[in-house]
Amino acid sequence: MELWQLREIVLKALQEDLPFGDKTTEFLIPQNLFGRAYFLAKSDLVICGEPIVELVFHEIDPSVKITWLYSEGAEVPKKSKIGFAEGRVSSLLKAERVALNFLQHLSGIATTVRRLIKFLPEKPLLLDTRKTLPGLKILQKYAVRIGGAKNHRFSLSDGILIKDNHLKALGGLEKVLDKLKNLPHYLKVEIEVKNLSELEIILKSEAQVDIVMLDNFSLEDLKKAISLIRSQKPNLKIEISGGITEENLKDYIQFDVDFISSGALTHSVKASDISFKIEEIWEE
Amino acid sequence: MELWQLREIVLKALQEDLPFGDKTTEFLIPQNLFGRAYFLAKSDLVICGEPIVELVFHEIDPSVKITWLYSEGAEVPKKSKIGFAEGRVSSLLKAERVALNFLQHLSGIATTVRRLIKFLPEKPLLLDTRKTLPGLKILQKYAVRIGGAKNHRFSLSDGILIKDNHLKALGGLEKVLDKLKNLPHYLKVEIEVKNLSELEIILKSEAQVDIVMLDNFSLEDLKKAISLIRSQKPNLKIEISGGITEENLKDYIQFDVDFISSGALTHSVKASDISFKIEEIWEE
Amino acid sequence: MELWQLREIVLKALQEDLPFGDKTTEFLIPQNLFGRAYFLAKSDLVICGEPIVELVFHEIDPSVKITWLYSEGAEVPKKSKIGFAEGRVSSLLKAERVALNFLQHLSGIATTVRRLIKFLPEKPLLLDTRKTLPGLKILQKYAVRIGGAKNHRFSLSDGILIKDNHLKALGGLEKVLDKLKNLPHYLKVEIEVKNLSELEIILKSEAQVDIVMLDNFSLEDLKKAISLIRSQKPNLKIEISGGITEENLKDYIQFDVDFISSGALTHSVKASDISFKIEEIWEE
Amino acid sequence: MELWQLREIVLKALQEDLPFGDKTTEFLIPQNLFGRAYFLAKSDLVICGEPIVELVFHEIDPSVKITWLYSEGAEVPKKSKIGFAEGRVSSLLKAERVALNFLQHLSGIATTVRRLIKFLPEKPLLLDTRKTLPGLKILQKYAVRIGGAKNHRFSLSDGILIKDNHLKALGGLEKVLDKLKNLPHYLKVEIEVKNLSELEIILKSEAQVDIVMLDNFSLEDLKKAISLIRSQKPNLKIEISGGITEENLKDYIQFDVDFISSGALTHSVKASDISFKIEEIWEE
Amino acid sequence: MELWQLREIVLKALQEDLPFGDKTTEFLIPQNLFGRAYFLAKSDLVICGEPIVELVFHEIDPSVKITWLYSEGAEVPKKSKIGFAEGRVSSLLKAERVALNFLQHLSGIATTVRRLIKFLPEKPLLLDTRKTLPGLKILQKYAVRIGGAKNHRFSLSDGILIKDNHLKALGGLEKVLDKLKNLPHYLKVEIEVKNLSELEIILKSEAQVDIVMLDNFSLEDLKKAISLIRSQKPNLKIEISGGITEENLKDYIQFDVDFISSGALTHSVKASDISFKIEEIWEE
Amino acid sequence: MELWQLREIVLKALQEDLPFGDKTTEFLIPQNLFGRAYFLAKSDLVICGEPIVELVFHEIDPSVKITWLYSEGAEVPKKSKIGFAEGRVSSLLKAERVALNFLQHLSGIATTVRRLIKFLPEKPLLLDTRKTLPGLKILQKYAVRIGGAKNHRFSLSDGILIKDNHLKALGGLEKVLDKLKNLPHYLKVEIEVKNLSELEIILKSEAQVDIVMLDNFSLEDLKKAISLIRSQKPNLKIEISGGITEENLKDYIQFDVDFISSGALTHSVKASDISFKIEEIWEE
Repeated sequence: MELWQLREIVLKALQEDLPFGDKTTEFLIPQNLFGRAYFLAKSDLVICGEPIVELVFHEIDPSVKITWLYSEGAEVPKKSKIGFAEGRVSSLLKAERVALNFLQHLSGIATTVRRLIKFLPEKPLLLDTRKTLPGLKILQKYAVRIGGAKNHRFSLSDGILIKDNHLKALGGLEKVLDKLKNLPHYLKVEIEVKNLSELEIILKSEAQVDIVMLDNFSLEDLKKAISLIRSQKPNLKIEISGGITEENLKDYIQFDVDFISSGALTHSVKASDISFKIEEIWEE
Repeated sequence: MELWQLREIVLKALQEDLPFGDKTTEFLIPQNLFGRAYFLAKSDLVICGEPIVELVFHEIDPSVKITWLYSEGAEVPKKSKIGFAEGRVSSLLKAERVALNFLQHLSGIATTVRRLIKFLPEKPLLLDTRKTLPGLKILQKYAVRIGGAKNHRFSLSDGILIKDNHLKALGGLEKVLDKLKNLPHYLKVEIEVKNLSELEIILKSEAQVDIVMLDNFSLEDLKKAISLIRSQKPNLKIEISGGITEENLKDYIQFDVDFISSGALTHSVKASDISFKIEEIWEE
Repeated sequence: MELWQLREIVLKALQEDLPFGDKTTEFLIPQNLFGRAYFLAKSDLVICGEPIVELVFHEIDPSVKITWLYSEGAEVPKKSKIGFAEGRVSSLLKAERVALNFLQHLSGIATTVRRLIKFLPEKPLLLDTRKTLPGLKILQKYAVRIGGAKNHRFSLSDGILIKDNHLKALGGLEKVLDKLKNLPHYLKVEIEVKNLSELEIILKSEAQVDIVMLDNFSLEDLKKAISLIRSQKPNLKIEISGGITEENLKDYIQFDVDFISSGALTHSVKASDISFKIEEIWEE
Repeated sequence: MELWQLREIVLKALQEDLPFGDKTTEFLIPQNLFGRAYFLAKSDLVICGEPIVELVFHEIDPSVKITWLYSEGAEVPKKSKIGFAEGRVSSLLKAERVALNFLQHLSGIATTVRRLIKFLPEKPLLLDTRKTLPGLKILQKYAVRIGGAKNHRFSLSDGILIKDNHLKALGGLEKVLDKLKNLPHYLKVEIEVKNLSELEIILKSEAQVDIVMLDNFSLEDLKKAISLIRSQKPNLKIEISGGITEENLKDYIQFDVDFISSGALTHSVKASDISFKIEEIWEE
Repeated sequence: MELWQLREIVLKALQEDLPFGDKTTEFLIPQNLFGRAYFLAKSDLVICGEPIVELVFHEIDPSVKITWLYSEGAEVPKKSKIGFAEGRVSSLLKAERVALNFLQHLSGIATTVRRLIKFLPEKPLLLDTRKTLPGLKILQKYAVRIGGAKNHRFSLSDGILIKDNHLKALGGLEKVLDKLKNLPHYLKVEIEVKNLSELEIILKSEAQVDIVMLDNFSLEDLKKAISLIRSQKPNLKIEISGGITEENLKDYIQFDVDFISSGALTHSVKASDISFKIEEIWEE
Repeated sequence: MELWQLREIVLKALQEDLPFGDKTTEFLIPQNLFGRAYFLAKSDLVICGEPIVELVFHEIDPSVKITWLYSEGAEVPKKSKIGFAEGRVSSLLKAERVALNFLQHLSGIATTVRRLIKFLPEKPLLLDTRKTLPGLKILQKYAVRIGGAKNHRFSLSDGILIKDNHLKALGGLEKVLDKLKNLPHYLKVEIEVKNLSELEIILKSEAQVDIVMLDNFSLEDLKKAISLIRSQKPNLKIEISGGITEENLKDYIQFDVDFISSGALTHSVKASDISFKIEEIWEE
């Protein structure tokens, strides 16, 4: 996550929330009032988004001081103070909601990811997907890493993944396999298969496929598929996806696969519950 | 929702997902291949985001034709086709994920909102909050309206809402009430109270307060509060918020309040399950 | 006025005035030449725009030092030095015109506003309108506040104001009044009326109208209108507008109205006369 | 004036005026209501800004039709209809104020310029200056041309103009004249002088000066200066500036000068009085 | 190359070349003058950039018609007309230089690439690098493809390439090889080696390296290196780079390598010689 | 070259090269690793681009320290260290390629220009043209000045240059000469002529032409042309252009002309060979 990239999204978020200033604060809060506020974890969470919170406050007022009691990625118990913002009260109030909107969303991702990977042995690796929220991809994928999972490709430009629509468009898997050698030489080739017969076409083919994605396989078929792959193409990496939830994750960890990917990590995020409380006030 | 405002977020989303093109599609799919694909509802949902989906496809390729079987805001049963995109296959594939990311998120919001408002009589109105995802506020608040709820203020510039941190900063509710007459004359004044004694200060005050927000009140206190307000200040509107979930919503609809607001409508969105399937292919 | 919002307009203004640098200065003025210049009030004025002047100089050269003899909003007598800019002479010369263009325009607004409000008792409040110059709204409305008047709504998003074209579109005032309950709950409702009979419709209606704007009323009708309103709807606020000029303002201050609004405050601004004079030069 | 340059300022103006839509119109005006409105000249004026008005309406709604009864630059008598906008009423209402803000400002410039040049024989030419409003330079200078005057340089990059601060910085006019040969070869050289003795230095110098600006000369000195220049350097063009107003313009037109420049043309604009009236309504 | 991405660079280029319009054309060319002009190849070339030329003309004037006699990527003999632009003469003249600047640069790249790949058998593939001109990467890499070569990674985000500075930072190749398993799973791993001993470390290692880049090897060492690789790690792809020029390219094509990469394709481009000539004029 | 203008091109270049970070560096290089690297001249060169290199590093990491052994514009012998970058190794590696892409291109221009002007006596001045690379005009023209040549006009807005297409459009040189008096008064007039008969029309005309460009004249015709001009219009400046290369430049310096212009200075740039080498590493 590069800070020079984040200024644009921060300014956009501020523009959205203060197009003509903060009417409540401007009319009520005197400029000579200073204070200290804290971020409070209202549930157990993995904190994520500290650098962007700092950017939010500093765009509004470079003199606000931010200090953290828990560092980025730390597990914060419910009811803990996470960190402090100290400075002009009007600046604290203007930044509060935008800062929390970032912090709650990113911590929500990191918290879910951390909980999931605790179920997982070293392998399989948990992966995200391209099912990200428009404009927030870089931040969401950062939160996935902070949570402890790995990123799948970021975009259509940095990974080859051949899916059902490609197969449909080209008239089936065999025809796709014939065309693989044209692909960019620095990217690995991953193909999504829907069933055992598609898998068998790949296993028989001499085309260079690096990763196979077993999509929406039943547990029974999954077992067969893994056994076929490990015996016939031991270098072929296995990703599973589709319908894997926090509830049934335990059904899958028995399998010898390399990657489990989940769109829900980024497309259906439950925000962490964090609030921002002024605790002390003084005049300067 | 103004279309001239959305081009920026659409271009940003495309730039995020195709900074250097779609490597898989460019190398596999011939330019003379055309096709028709449909959007498929994989669960019951309220469809939302059709205009932005059109914008996504048309930025990539103005010749793609989009037709809808269900209009914006309609309730779509699981397994229904929602609409079609027809045109160059490479254009369909490049736009697919970005279009779905918008459509699944916005339909997710609209679907939840619609489900909630079916529990509610004409009053109270269900409201959203400023707990929106950075950069997506206009779209999220649009989806709330499509779902059938009402928008609370959009930003700090278009509504006065005095909250706990303002009270803390100014030394308590009495001091705040003294300063109310300076506020912009075209905005109503809403104050958040945390308990019955704060409420009583407002009820006794002559200051002009238009709406009171009862935040995190117990059911018992809520009952007392409403009774006090209705008898003493019948023109004061009542908003309740805090801890109201889909599960306990039924506990609240018994009360004579004007508004129920919920941050979760926009901060913790469960995406609708929608997929995009090519169903026919031809060469031109 | 938020500084993070102003950088864009400052950079745009610099880009307009120095797309390829300052040819005169670059070719004539050596880089080792330093100096101090002052801003000179060539007429009595209320100074406004100091923070944006600082931004202009600092974008061009962060090492320029700006000091002010009169603070923002002060009344500066003709022939007074207002403040100083000290630093590399080439930087001073590059920034001079853009800085003055902002300062003269904003001081022009603040000066006129200050002069007008001196005629006015505590009530009515003088208000601006949405008749602002494209791209300069935030700055112009800031200058209105510095001058001492109040802002009316900033945009079509943060206030309800029903005007003659709405009435024409909906088939008259009665039909409009029937639809008022749908409006956003956090905004007050203002309606413009053109004559006494329209006013009477409002006075008889039970619809919730918070403010009435008496537009272009004769002095005689105004007197009647105010008397009707104050006796029949004492809580209804009164705004008058249309044809009120500096010259005839005294005719209006006799009336018991709440607000006087004037588009000319921002649409027809007479710039303050300010110049920028180098007073001392040295080499470093 | 290039249309591809204007979209940015139009979008900025719309964003300023409708950050979250037009609340009044959205809640009151049904989408199936169509109508025709006209622009009405409420005073005699020179109409200017038609292309940008079209852009404003078309960004909001490409289906609105604009027709003009008076073409750009025409003299429109008071009470005349200038043109029509026809289409969805909600689109007309959203665009109204932004369109008028452009049209009234630019027509204000063109109207004043036209009035002034009617006093002037073919020579001197009336010129604008760089005293333009930030962000509006291209439009303001366009309105000056529509009015019938000429543009002086647009920016510090496209003209050499040596002013009092350059002289002060370099230690006097003689030292400046020594450095002139370094200037960009494609630009003419203009020097501002404050009095007859500075003028004499130029007249005696062999340095290549193309234009001399006589700034704030008394009528008497002006007469002497012109006589000296015409007899000694007949190729030297003469510009006069400073303190020339509409009132005293007649005092100056007796003189044999080439250019008269006036900052007030763009820094102190009186907006033309134009309104926008819906005249017919129908449903579609 | 996505057209929605190119509008920004086209508008930037127009803004650079016409910040305040085309003074020569505006003042000399009447608006009713229409004409047809052709693009003329003044040397043998591979034409590249037609879509962006169309974009340039259409931003300035959507009514200009462009037709091509040679399609994108065709080999155009010296003195041939390449295509036509027909429309308002002032529009043709405003667009001319910006259009040619794109066309000459991109055709220059495509022409050089085409000439080089004619020397090369099917293998090795000629590759570009990240040594591109700032802001022009997408266009330059597109021209490389039009010329007939392949793109290496576009950015630091879409390929793993471990170079001398990484080795220096980590204390040598062995230490790097130990850390390879952490790399993103969808990207192949390429390592640059400077000499045979570094190569031998890779050949002995069990780390997964997909491509080795032999950088600046002498012809003699190259021969040895290839022989070692092909016998010991037949699946390891070989890229050579460094000091390979058009002159000595023939020395290298004898070798059994997979890729030859050349920074000069994009960092040292000789523009193709193309001019734009009006051939017919009429009034409309 | 104004630094506030360059941030946009630097951020664009970084965005192009690190849309989702530097995968190689992020996964291999620990954050506690610091180091010092130097820029190495691999050929004799004139260094140009130091301020923009600093901007590149500081956008990525404000704590990187840059020091220069040769100042901007200095002649650096092959194998010399030019300067140092010291700081976090991951920051150095992320910035390396973008910084070099700027530095090599701009030094390439400055080096060629410096070599050419060493052939030239004080007159003629070497000039660049508008044949610049899109988006890089300000930087390229800066490098021309650092090299020691002069800039011709930057854009179509800041110079009058009448070329063959204007003549064709207007029906010949005579017709053009008739229209010259309308041109902006602050710009000189240059006309391009293709042969002696066109030149003679200018020499006979009374129209005010300041500079004549002799385009693609043979040496013989050039001699005649210069003699005619100097004898008949001694104040007319002479520019020659077309087909002048480094090789035949010596043929031209015998002539008494004022300017030689060359498009190749900016349209066909050979990058300077500069590399970036880490020389020391430590942990912090």
